[in-house]
Amino acid sequence: MKSLTIIKIGGNVVEDPGMLSQFLDEFARISTPKILVHGGGKRATAVSESLGVKPEMKDGRRLTDAATLEVVTMVYGGLINKNIVAALQARDVNALGLTGADLNIVPAHKRVHPTIDYGYVGDFEVVDIDAERIAWLLNEGITPVFCALTHDGKGSLLNTNADTMATGLAIRMSSGFEVELNYCFEKKGVLLDLDHEEDYIRSLSWSYYQQLKADGTIADGMIPKLDNAFNAFKAGVQSIRIRHARQIDVPQGTQLAG
Amino acid sequence: MKSLTIIKIGGNVVEDPGMLSQFLDEFARISTPKILVHGGGKRATAVSESLGVKPEMKDGRRLTDAATLEVVTMVYGGLINKNIVAALQARDVNALGLTGADLNIVPAHKRVHPTIDYGYVGDFEVVDIDAERIAWLLNEGITPVFCALTHDGKGSLLNTNADTMATGLAIRMSSGFEVELNYCFEKKGVLLDLDHEEDYIRSLSWSYYQQLKADGTIADGMIPKLDNAFNAFKAGVQSIRIRHARQIDVPQGTQLAG
Repeated sequence: MKSLTIIKIGGNVVEDPGMLSQFLDEFARISTPKILVHGGGKRATAVSESLGVKPEMKDGRRLTDAATLEVVTMVYGGLINKNIVAALQARDVNALGLTGADLNIVPAHKRVHPTIDYGYVGDFEVVDIDAERIAWLLNEGITPVFCALTHDGKGSLLNTNADTMATGLAIRMSSGFEVELNYCFEKKGVLLDLDHEEDYIRSLSWSYYQQLKADGTIADGMIPKLDNAFNAFKAGVQSIRIRHARQIDVPQGTQLAG
Repeated sequence: MKSLTIIKIGGNVVEDPGMLSQFLDEFARISTPKILVHGGGKRATAVSESLGVKPEMKDGRRLTDAATLEVVTMVYGGLINKNIVAALQARDVNALGLTGADLNIVPAHKRVHPTIDYGYVGDFEVVDIDAERIAWLLNEGITPVFCALTHDGKGSLLNTNADTMATGLAIRMSSGFEVELNYCFEKKGVLLDLDHEEDYIRSLSWSYYQQLKADGTIADGMIPKLDNAFNAFKAGVQSIRIRHARQIDVPQGTQLAG
């Protein structure tokens, strides 16, 4: 099977021009077909505040009212996505910026929850992702750059978690490609102690993850990230790492293991 | 030759939800391959003001400093473009939102002017537009939706006039397609008297245009629009109209003539 590298970069990488530039240099050098998925929540929060739109959070997810949807559409779909596309073109990567609405690649639906109205938050079924269309782009030498917006097929964009988007793409593409999925952020991996970055976990199994969750070593925002990563692992994605955005050509960081 | 319909809609159409929705209904019914180009200056101005970014104009063009480039990237590339894409997908049009940076379709350069620094304003050579890539998308049943952003190939997006973008696309595609180019706005055509919308000009030749310009009947923003339209006409675009965004299936409005 052909190889496919899928990299997700978080808001802290996107927000740091030096780190982003170095990452994009390295990303450009990846010779296999590749897909980039980016977040940008920090910038969205800053723009929201400048516009007087107050962001509300619930369990680490942004509640998305109509005004917030406009902000994330501007920031994720426009500002961050198109600047990354232009930066990749300057590095001879034939990038194409996409939301899930473009080419109807990631159809979704508004989140259904018994008690919380998340607003314009989108959940998708992995099977609905148009893998053929993505493969058609990759075969043409095109590098898709996804922001985490989807749509409901009824005319509304929806706000989706970028880790979930990367996970879904990786699972869906793993039937036709040998997928290497990297969640890149500003740390070297999953840490045992937030004050000792060198002590990151090299290999993380499901049972070790459960133990570290139970004793509180792994907490907060790392839990949904690892839940996403283990979803990809269980669904058969061939290689999964949580790692720094630096030196992505070197296999380092926390690798998921059986 | 195959037919290709290229429609440019201005900010007043984009800003009016009812007019935009009706336009998109009709646009969706066009059975030939089609391209949509949209503006959005009014919304960009409003967002600029909310963010405390003061827009400067010179000869009807927005001077684009770094802060303004961020705003237009958010508004044109994100908010307006992606909402139109989602609205078209809801109408079974397989839309793909594009800037000139995506797929490197419209490479450009910063405007060079002897006395004015326009900032991040992009001019392009028509011959540099990647007609093969656009034809490849059209042949696949994809409808490109362009906002008027281009890029310099060195990592910077550039702000380009939407009429000029539509004109360039029409000229470039007219070698392989029978192109029908429509500049749609909120009037029935080029008016002889701004107070009498029914008295729009049905057929406008170059010499008649020169006469109406000389006597002041045609003035202000209509001049760059018509200069663009006549550029397309002289370059061989087969059919060109300045017209209302309503009833685009009916051949009406001001048609350019030899």
